Amino acid sequence: MNIQGFLFSTVEAAIKKAGRKDLALIFSEVPAAAAAVFTTSTVKAAPVLLSHEHIMSGTARAVIVNSGNANACTGEQGMKDAQETVQLVSQALGIDMKEVQVCSTGVIGVQMPMDRMRPAITPLVDGLTSGTLDDIAQAIMTTDTFPKMEARSGQAGGVSYSVAGIAKGAGMIMPNMATMLSFIITDAAVEPAFLQQAFRCAVESSFNAITVDGDMSTNDTCLIMANGMAGNPVITEGSVEGKAFSATVNDVLLSLAKQIVKDGEGATKFVEIRVSGAKDNADAKRAAMAIANSSLVKTAFFGQDANWGRIFAAVGYSGAEVDQSLLSLSFDDVCMAKNGIFAGGDAEARGTEVLKQKEFTVSVDLGINSGTSTVYTSDLTHEYVSINADYRS
Amino acid sequence: MNIQGFLFSTVEAAIKKAGRKDLALIFSEVPAAAAAVFTTSTVKAAPVLLSHEHIMSGTARAVIVNSGNANACTGEQGMKDAQETVQLVSQALGIDMKEVQVCSTGVIGVQMPMDRMRPAITPLVDGLTSGTLDDIAQAIMTTDTFPKMEARSGQAGGVSYSVAGIAKGAGMIMPNMATMLSFIITDAAVEPAFLQQAFRCAVESSFNAITVDGDMSTNDTCLIMANGMAGNPVITEGSVEGKAFSATVNDVLLSLAKQIVKDGEGATKFVEIRVSGAKDNADAKRAAMAIANSSLVKTAFFGQDANWGRIFAAVGYSGAEVDQSLLSLSFDDVCMAKNGIFAGGDAEARGTEVLKQKEFTVSVDLGINSGTSTVYTSDLTHEYVSINADYRS
Repeated sequence: MNIQGFLFSTVEAAIKKAGRKDLALIFSEVPAAAAAVFTTSTVKAAPVLLSHEHIMSGTARAVIVNSGNANACTGEQGMKDAQETVQLVSQALGIDMKEVQVCSTGVIGVQMPMDRMRPAITPLVDGLTSGTLDDIAQAIMTTDTFPKMEARSGQAGGVSYSVAGIAKGAGMIMPNMATMLSFIITDAAVEPAFLQQAFRCAVESSFNAITVDGDMSTNDTCLIMANGMAGNPVITEGSVEGKAFSATVNDVLLSLAKQIVKDGEGATKFVEIRVSGAKDNADAKRAAMAIANSSLVKTAFFGQDANWGRIFAAVGYSGAEVDQSLLSLSFDDVCMAKNGIFAGGDAEARGTEVLKQKEFTVSVDLGINSGTSTVYTSDLTHEYVSINADYRS
Repeated sequence: MNIQGFLFSTVEAAIKKAGRKDLALIFSEVPAAAAAVFTTSTVKAAPVLLSHEHIMSGTARAVIVNSGNANACTGEQGMKDAQETVQLVSQALGIDMKEVQVCSTGVIGVQMPMDRMRPAITPLVDGLTSGTLDDIAQAIMTTDTFPKMEARSGQAGGVSYSVAGIAKGAGMIMPNMATMLSFIITDAAVEPAFLQQAFRCAVESSFNAITVDGDMSTNDTCLIMANGMAGNPVITEGSVEGKAFSATVNDVLLSLAKQIVKDGEGATKFVEIRVSGAKDNADAKRAAMAIANSSLVKTAFFGQDANWGRIFAAVGYSGAEVDQSLLSLSFDDVCMAKNGIFAGGDAEARGTEVLKQKEFTVSVDLGINSGTSTVYTSDLTHEYVSINADYRS
């Protein structure tokens, strides 16, 4: 898919282990309307702090991102390094420093290898004519086992535009926000305030609705850039085109978010958790997240054990309003429990069959009111323990 | 140790797998002042609801406890079964139903095997002359690998008394409250209101300060009974004897709580997390619990990886007030990070040596104010995943 006016480049700067690209650049030939959502952690990496400052302008032209080092917990030196990186990129591209977004992912607490970063910027910029978005998706991977990409097209005023996104993330996945990096680019012309609103909304029901291990990172950044090069009439809020654009952005983000869960460290299952009947949507999300983050529930998924009792236990401590005599639960279309107790019959055997699948849905109804929430999670496996006991992230 | 006036009995009622005692009775020959703390989950097991009602009287004489079935998520039938169990015990012992505490632990969502429970009560009561507290500690085990006991003695008015406790619990360990069963008995005479206060205080800094997997159970119960048979002058609040009694109860509970963490499912490490310099004690506990419950931190402990960055990341999303430039962290006496950044020198090598031990302390100072908290946790291992993928709890 061709996203007009965006160029890509990646190089190997020896930040990660040898033989892997680890420095990437996305460049828009014209200034793009931009919006970003960052980690809500109070321990923020230097590039997050700097990018947050830069995005205030509402525009961006370049994203410089490295993998292999998070530049987090690196103090004043870390901030100086992020600033120098931005300066080098802005000089090489001939753009304003404020138009550069900088992102890092990798090990925490180690200073950036600036002696290797500095000489890599010129070849990186020189390579902009030949790179692809797929190259970027590859270069930003850490424990990811596959690159994550999604693209959609849309129309506004008879003009076609494209929306494409990439993401990285496999562990440290927990909402508020995405605990990963994701970059969305579109050549659509979009009214800046509406772009920001549509983007935030899409993040909430995608990256903020997934969890792998309940950990949130210091570096989470999700960014969208809309450069208008498609030449469509500007898309605005409330219009038919606006609704279609929102839906398209939603689709791209949800697809990327699901890819992250499927690549959850060591995951063998992809589980959709749907909570309904809650006091309100916030309560529903509380219950859904408690289920999705419960180590006991997640190991039961791994063990293909139709252990609905552990799910009710998680709902019980979630903080959501619960009347246990009203709880019901299904695995896909198999009702396991009703009115708070086991549904009986052959539910056990049929529920176990559902859990043997690679993907299934857990539906819990609280029976109180009409609040709903859907979140996505994976199982907790031996492989998760291996990856995180061995990998220094 | 002899705890005057308490009798014990256990039988095999075929609730657990064959060959293991699974029904236990603690009996005080005289009415005892009693206090209890129960799970704060909104999904409470029937015996928890019933015992909570009974403990309102402030006295208890008997505790009937089974392992192998939690009698949780069992609806009205579950409550009838708990009531019938209490009735059978009270009749056999010739005491009031309100004087009986009933507890269950094991699989959730399965009705109690009352046909096997009923005939077991008479032999259970008949066995009271020959049993020991150690027998009880054995009978209440589920995934525990060893029974948990602790005993201390004290003096009041020149009269010696004893405090002994047992506990079970290995997974589903997370505070508010203990996500386990624990029974404390003492022959000391203690003023009832003071007993309750001293007990709640001790629970807060012991069972509510441990976490294995962040899951809370539907059945948690921690109970103390003081029957006064030692014949000491009644211990009251504010007295020297009162302080000594509080300290003794604290010691017993903290020892039991630590034993539970050491028996954490699959655990290979025992880690004390000390947070200081927080805005207040509640904030310190928030930070300590976020560290103790982080899957990424716990797998790093298992991997003996001195990954202090993951610990700062956990503090960052804990909700505690944090200024990352003030954070410091030590493994035992090795300073790993100061002013938010790596301490440098040979900290990495020395920190790794600390983590190779079976027990160590992680100290984090937030540098903001004087709030402190200490919690205890274990690592996250392959064995944890195996136990919980295979065991139906």
